[in-house]
Amino acid sequence: MRRAYLTGFTGSAGTAVVTKDKAALWTDGRYFLQAEKELSHDWTLMRSGNQGVPTTSEWLNEVLPSGCRVGIDPFLFSFDAAEELKDAISEKNHELVLIKDLNLVDEIWGESRPEPPKERTRVHGIKYAGVDVPSKLSFVRSQLAENGCNAVVISLLDEVAWLLNMRGSDVPNSPIFYSYLIVEDTAATLFVDNNKVSEDVLEHLEKAGVKLKPYEAILSDVERLAENGAKLWLDSSSINAAIVNVFRSSCERYVKKRGKAGRQIGKESSQGDPATGSSGVQNGTVNALYKVSPATLAKAVKNEAEVEGMKSSHLRDAAALAEFWCWLEGQVRESVPLTEVQVAEKLLEFRQKQDGFIDTSFDTISGYGANGAIIHYRPTPESCSSVESDNLFLLDSGAQYIDGTTDITRTVHFGEPTPRQKECFTRVLQGHIALDQAVFPERTPGFVLDVLARSSLWKIGLDYRHGTGHGVGAALNVHEGPQSISYRYGNLTALQKGMIVSNEPGYYEDNSFGIRIENLLLVKEVDLPNSFGGVSYLGFEKLTFVPIQSKLVDLSLLSPSEINWINEYHDEVWEKVSPLLSGHSLDWLRKNTRPL
Amino acid sequence: MRRAYLTGFTGSAGTAVVTKDKAALWTDGRYFLQAEKELSHDWTLMRSGNQGVPTTSEWLNEVLPSGCRVGIDPFLFSFDAAEELKDAISEKNHELVLIKDLNLVDEIWGESRPEPPKERTRVHGIKYAGVDVPSKLSFVRSQLAENGCNAVVISLLDEVAWLLNMRGSDVPNSPIFYSYLIVEDTAATLFVDNNKVSEDVLEHLEKAGVKLKPYEAILSDVERLAENGAKLWLDSSSINAAIVNVFRSSCERYVKKRGKAGRQIGKESSQGDPATGSSGVQNGTVNALYKVSPATLAKAVKNEAEVEGMKSSHLRDAAALAEFWCWLEGQVRESVPLTEVQVAEKLLEFRQKQDGFIDTSFDTISGYGANGAIIHYRPTPESCSSVESDNLFLLDSGAQYIDGTTDITRTVHFGEPTPRQKECFTRVLQGHIALDQAVFPERTPGFVLDVLARSSLWKIGLDYRHGTGHGVGAALNVHEGPQSISYRYGNLTALQKGMIVSNEPGYYEDNSFGIRIENLLLVKEVDLPNSFGGVSYLGFEKLTFVPIQSKLVDLSLLSPSEINWINEYHDEVWEKVSPLLSGHSLDWLRKNTRPL
Repeated sequence: MRRAYLTGFTGSAGTAVVTKDKAALWTDGRYFLQAEKELSHDWTLMRSGNQGVPTTSEWLNEVLPSGCRVGIDPFLFSFDAAEELKDAISEKNHELVLIKDLNLVDEIWGESRPEPPKERTRVHGIKYAGVDVPSKLSFVRSQLAENGCNAVVISLLDEVAWLLNMRGSDVPNSPIFYSYLIVEDTAATLFVDNNKVSEDVLEHLEKAGVKLKPYEAILSDVERLAENGAKLWLDSSSINAAIVNVFRSSCERYVKKRGKAGRQIGKESSQGDPATGSSGVQNGTVNALYKVSPATLAKAVKNEAEVEGMKSSHLRDAAALAEFWCWLEGQVRESVPLTEVQVAEKLLEFRQKQDGFIDTSFDTISGYGANGAIIHYRPTPESCSSVESDNLFLLDSGAQYIDGTTDITRTVHFGEPTPRQKECFTRVLQGHIALDQAVFPERTPGFVLDVLARSSLWKIGLDYRHGTGHGVGAALNVHEGPQSISYRYGNLTALQKGMIVSNEPGYYEDNSFGIRIENLLLVKEVDLPNSFGGVSYLGFEKLTFVPIQSKLVDLSLLSPSEINWINEYHDEVWEKVSPLLSGHSLDWLRKNTRPL
Repeated sequence: MRRAYLTGFTGSAGTAVVTKDKAALWTDGRYFLQAEKELSHDWTLMRSGNQGVPTTSEWLNEVLPSGCRVGIDPFLFSFDAAEELKDAISEKNHELVLIKDLNLVDEIWGESRPEPPKERTRVHGIKYAGVDVPSKLSFVRSQLAENGCNAVVISLLDEVAWLLNMRGSDVPNSPIFYSYLIVEDTAATLFVDNNKVSEDVLEHLEKAGVKLKPYEAILSDVERLAENGAKLWLDSSSINAAIVNVFRSSCERYVKKRGKAGRQIGKESSQGDPATGSSGVQNGTVNALYKVSPATLAKAVKNEAEVEGMKSSHLRDAAALAEFWCWLEGQVRESVPLTEVQVAEKLLEFRQKQDGFIDTSFDTISGYGANGAIIHYRPTPESCSSVESDNLFLLDSGAQYIDGTTDITRTVHFGEPTPRQKECFTRVLQGHIALDQAVFPERTPGFVLDVLARSSLWKIGLDYRHGTGHGVGAALNVHEGPQSISYRYGNLTALQKGMIVSNEPGYYEDNSFGIRIENLLLVKEVDLPNSFGGVSYLGFEKLTFVPIQSKLVDLSLLSPSEINWINEYHDEVWEKVSPLLSGHSLDWLRKNTRPL
């Protein structure tokens, strides 16, 4: 929100850099068009990933005279990101300054800055969570022991929520709450604003042996751990630079103090594992293990109750969507004027009627015609288009239910699609089908499969500038790691049974139309006639059951097996969703799940 | 050959490690079965890549008491490999000893060790090379200048041959000759046994300004460069540890000497580029740039003449293969007893009749039945099977012609294949077709495409334990880098227009049969209706034109577009190869290129 306040750009990803006489905003391909629209002339748009576009640090090294001071808010940079920036700008002798005591944007914003949220948290019932908090904490503790650590600071908010079977509503669309969690050998402490904790939640936490401390106490507790000589597990890719720096400086202070007292430093930290060579505050080094959080993978691999909740919430979501599409088709047929925002609002109404609905899981992307080509378009009441029957309409939306999180994109045409639109849609669909049908040996990273979703587009020289799949939380964040299916080859995390990923290839013709077809998929073991190499083979099970508009399919491009896929999918949609519908919506579903 | 002499294992890849009381041989999945057969009980077979199998250094750290001395022949280890080994064994305080003055295996081998080869070299005509030596050297010099270097040592033998438009026959199957090449700003020196250089070659080299020195003079010349303060470009992934170590120690001696003379060392090396920060022998550091050789990519991207030669030699090779398969089918039909070795010899005869034939490009893999499952099987006259009509016959072979290098695998059945064999063959073929038809944006590394060749096998739980494609030289080594198409994700080299790669998915059922279908492909730009992102899109053009046995195809598994691919390929085979054939062979080709 600070970035949006400062720059006007409201996309979900970007970096603003301001020097004494320049201001530049970096964002990625999803947001180029949106940023062009939203940024004023004071700002230079930096299209990340385009050839010749410098990174933020390259730019700083270019535009600043050497030896400058570059400030960041250390609570808003991960330790890794801050270190990377520090290293990069040191090339021109710039110094990175951690501005801990104030935030420069807030200084400008002043009193008109919104208050921080104070929403109540709630217990995420064991029926949906599947595993109780003591079990989760003891898993974390077993990981601490295995890694020779005494404590871990969990700062990713979805990890705190997942570990403590709690949910909140501090952040739009994500059922999380501002907090930190420290899990130690024998204790666990949640750092959170007391006002957010109801009696229920308090009892729930007490039962699990979790103490409460104020949100702001995190830094002093990290100091305490340093002074006790604890070996701390820090996920430096996510934990903020402020925490790591407090820990480091406290360790150093501790070393000096002990040094003055004439005692041998190396032997003081008795709990470390000498075999790993990283135990103890030795020679002034910091007593920390930098490693991905023990909760990351555990959260990504869903248990049975979580899978059950995801499946069930997806069916209710599908019913809402069937009602919505049925309604929208009728409105457009009768030429009722409707804007992209009104359409999104109506979709919300349909979802709100479903059991256990809580919130949307992200801002609905309701893009008609050229707006569909803005990958993360967010319509505003003032400027948005109306939804008509002359072009494609792309709708990417999702919901938070008590038992699960959904994320679905469908692209439709209410009139006559052009042959070009049909060709592009069909090739996107072929990519979607190819990924959906993929079978692969365990230990395969997601990026290996990305090409399956792209190759039908590549064959005619088309592509899309985003990844193909992201992880999805169970009644948690709609985007989560560590897995992904992307053309970036850096993420080596293997897809594992129980993970959930999106399957969302697309194609975007600037100033013309956008296409995306997205289902969520559960990674499952597949039962095959062979198992070469003695390994398991994995595949996907669909969670999303909403028809794909057959009007947009160019049958001549499809193989018989691709046509089968569509027909079987629509059979399944009918079977699973029709029991939840009646009247016009049921008719609509019947019509839209007929075999090709 | 030393490894084969010592261990009995004759595969092309492996590492033997001998301690005072243990002996172990590491090899990869291609050779597990072969190694099992060939190793005596004195040797432990280490199956690299299998779970729980230690690397050589892990094993040394396990079996040796700490603080041992581990010797290697530094002429046989790349600098990188030696450094990696050194680092890894330093964990247990082992010391790596470079045994420069003798080779321990040779000490045992004694007088029965074969003489080093003394074959004559020849000029590789400009008609086939396409670019003359002065142009190639001036390209290398432009690279030296760009990188602030004064000289480069080229030690990869195919790079020396390519840069100097020379060929030799010191090594079976590869037209290379033992040599080193140093290219300096204003000079070029070939280090080679004088006896290998004819008048022709001498004249050719003189014209290009290339001097000759004895092979053994390489180390003293590297010393000379160090003493002259030259900044040396070394491809540490391939250059041997002996050369790098001589350069380093010479640099250090030079530093000391200069130091004693009271002169400022940093300023002595005038030719370095101060901007890069790596110029000059400063603070005792070595004056070297470690970077992939400037010839590597230039050699991999074929020029027009090289492409022409590859195409032409592939057609002659195809004619030889058609004659061969026609002959073999007849022999088997008439139950003429033939061993795998006899079949390979006969194939050689057919190839020898073709214009410009020089040699096979690797040892023919002629594997009947279970032998076909040994990925790099090499039949021996004593132990090989006969080729009959009850099982699959896998034949992987290639030739060196004056104008090109071939590499082709076909798998056939002379009787009735089982449904299992047909299913496996068809799935391998589907992978082959998928890769052949791939279209992809420029800057795509080969590994991205690997999954296309595997996914049809994965669908039934099958896989193969080797990469899908390797680079191929033009009238040079049948295996060359830097590109590859592999399930190993480390090789980020993008496929580029003009590169040649093999397309060779397979499937191997231990103790039963092996399947592989291999064509060579030229990477080319494809002309598409779109070019999203403003980039070029690349695809493949087939170089290999030999029928694929349709008897082995299970048509029910294929899509119409896959059937089209086969029919179009066979049309093209007929069109291109039939003019080179007559009689029975022509009939055979007609029969085997009929549409499915």
